[in-house]
Amino acid sequence: MTDQKPFLAALAGQSVSPPPVWLMRQAGRYLPEYRASRKEAGSFLDLCYTPDFAVEVTLQPLRRYGFDAAILFSDILVVPHGLGQKLWFVEGEGPKLEALTGEADLEALSLPRMEEALQPVYQAVAGIKAAIPESTALIGFAGAPWTVASYMLEGGSSKDFATGKSWAYGTPERFQRLIDLLIEATAQHLSRQIVAGAEAVQIFDSWAGVWPERHFRRWCLEPMKAITAKVKAAHPDIPVILFPRGAGLLYEAVAKEAGCDAVSLDTTVPLGWAAKTLQPHVCVQGNLDPLQLMAGGAELDRAVDEIVGTLSGGPFVFNLGHGILPKTPPEHVSRLIERLRGGSNTAENGLSTQSAPATA
Amino acid sequence: MTDQKPFLAALAGQSVSPPPVWLMRQAGRYLPEYRASRKEAGSFLDLCYTPDFAVEVTLQPLRRYGFDAAILFSDILVVPHGLGQKLWFVEGEGPKLEALTGEADLEALSLPRMEEALQPVYQAVAGIKAAIPESTALIGFAGAPWTVASYMLEGGSSKDFATGKSWAYGTPERFQRLIDLLIEATAQHLSRQIVAGAEAVQIFDSWAGVWPERHFRRWCLEPMKAITAKVKAAHPDIPVILFPRGAGLLYEAVAKEAGCDAVSLDTTVPLGWAAKTLQPHVCVQGNLDPLQLMAGGAELDRAVDEIVGTLSGGPFVFNLGHGILPKTPPEHVSRLIERLRGGSNTAENGLSTQSAPATA
Repeated sequence: MTDQKPFLAALAGQSVSPPPVWLMRQAGRYLPEYRASRKEAGSFLDLCYTPDFAVEVTLQPLRRYGFDAAILFSDILVVPHGLGQKLWFVEGEGPKLEALTGEADLEALSLPRMEEALQPVYQAVAGIKAAIPESTALIGFAGAPWTVASYMLEGGSSKDFATGKSWAYGTPERFQRLIDLLIEATAQHLSRQIVAGAEAVQIFDSWAGVWPERHFRRWCLEPMKAITAKVKAAHPDIPVILFPRGAGLLYEAVAKEAGCDAVSLDTTVPLGWAAKTLQPHVCVQGNLDPLQLMAGGAELDRAVDEIVGTLSGGPFVFNLGHGILPKTPPEHVSRLIERLRGGSNTAENGLSTQSAPATA
Repeated sequence: MTDQKPFLAALAGQSVSPPPVWLMRQAGRYLPEYRASRKEAGSFLDLCYTPDFAVEVTLQPLRRYGFDAAILFSDILVVPHGLGQKLWFVEGEGPKLEALTGEADLEALSLPRMEEALQPVYQAVAGIKAAIPESTALIGFAGAPWTVASYMLEGGSSKDFATGKSWAYGTPERFQRLIDLLIEATAQHLSRQIVAGAEAVQIFDSWAGVWPERHFRRWCLEPMKAITAKVKAAHPDIPVILFPRGAGLLYEAVAKEAGCDAVSLDTTVPLGWAAKTLQPHVCVQGNLDPLQLMAGGAELDRAVDEIVGTLSGGPFVFNLGHGILPKTPPEHVSRLIERLRGGSNTAENGLSTQSAPATA
């Protein structure tokens, strides 16, 4: 063992015991203290763009559970928002954007505008870095170009991705221009987070699982590979985690070809296959079903044991296969952490477990 | 070559050239004659339960395109509806059911009631069989237990399958009773369709791609295997096609373990892997992206050529990876058929290509 933070040691290829753990959307609505901060801040975007609030909600789950990593509280859609696209959130419906309709909308997007607009995000990163315990790592993140483009073209979430796919299949040169802009913007956004203190970055391709292989390679794998190369050119020591959710068999291509340090597995990825096929190449992260965490009890214990039993022989970070659900009882997260750490103190990282005031 | 219908020859393991073709939801809203029948019939359920209408809309796409198979026009939710659950369709929102909430709702479901209620469906099967050309095969179908159970418990479609998974993870014995009832009901429903004239059956597990492997096996693979065994015990010569949409790597387990004759591939299944891993065991069917069909043009041609080029060395049926979309231009389907058949007459099966009156 080195004196590296456990999360970073796993990303560097070590098998770490007990396995480092964090949860996607660990700062979120399942925590009463988050709901209080959210109420105080106003809108969801106010929470993202006010550094004091973003720092506070990022720290809340660390206080309760002593996770091995903090992840910046933000949203993948701050990139198109920063580039100049209108963005708002409708309670219970998710994000809404004024959908791009053609060339002129593309031309209006501006990288320098984004640089300026996202300063509060980078301030939040610096604030979090200053506040987290020494053994805790700080993760920066962004959405992958395809997933972000999908929101930009559909104007929100989608069932069949008809508009995004119509651009890809019908006007691929125009779609490539949007993807190329997002490669630039995403690499820049991640680099700024790294400069501000992020020690690893994760790229979320939440809608990767909708393409024929040829198009998965062009619109998901290649853009993530390009961003990874750009980030590593500027910051060679920063590990990159890719999350091509739903990629199925094509997880193998990502693990072997994208140049990343880790892949985050969705819930459907078979554990034995991941151990045999992916772990020889990269660290794997995942992949408890958020509904198993919500269920708790013996089902949760069995699922945790199976994941750890199958994946802890190689580089491995425990996580969910998708974001934690708002109705998850917080005590189920405690049970999970105790199961992973064999009953050791869940707040051994030095942060008080007492709930702090909603903001500084 | 035998004198078997081309579709049945492929299911029996032969490589057939040109490949037999049909499309999921080939009878549907993209056809003006379907929209006219739908308007005349009243509700979507009226269309399903009035044999004359169900026969007519089933035949419509055969007249235009000369597909190698007809598929009964019906819905996977006629099974819970027949069992006694309230079902209705809201325009633009899809199916709604009065969700099951517990033991008493389960007890109220009745197999004999279903047998009685679904007589019009079996009459439609007999009517279609009498009307289709000799070279066209007739497919019967049903939803898989997990997918149908999900609708029964959520009361409609779902984003995260929270209720269904809560039953599976929290009260597995109760969930198993529902799945077992659906295994019985589905096997019975398929057998009745076979007795009425169906020459092959397809089981749709549209939501198969949401489980950890252990649960996929228990709630998707095992029930489909049990239904396949029951159908084959009564009708040994009837081929069974399974469609575990989103199963990813676990398509392999389905192809090797479920006892089926074919698997239907969703759009994300890599073609080379399917040829190498699945085709030695079963016929494969698929897997054009419905959005590529909607796009048309060079993208459609390239995708068709790639699928046929990779899969036509073994037993193969051309299809989509998911249902055809309502906005698909009907002339794109003509283009697809011409591409597959090298420009031969698309209505060589003897049905008039002229649009027939909406119902008999």
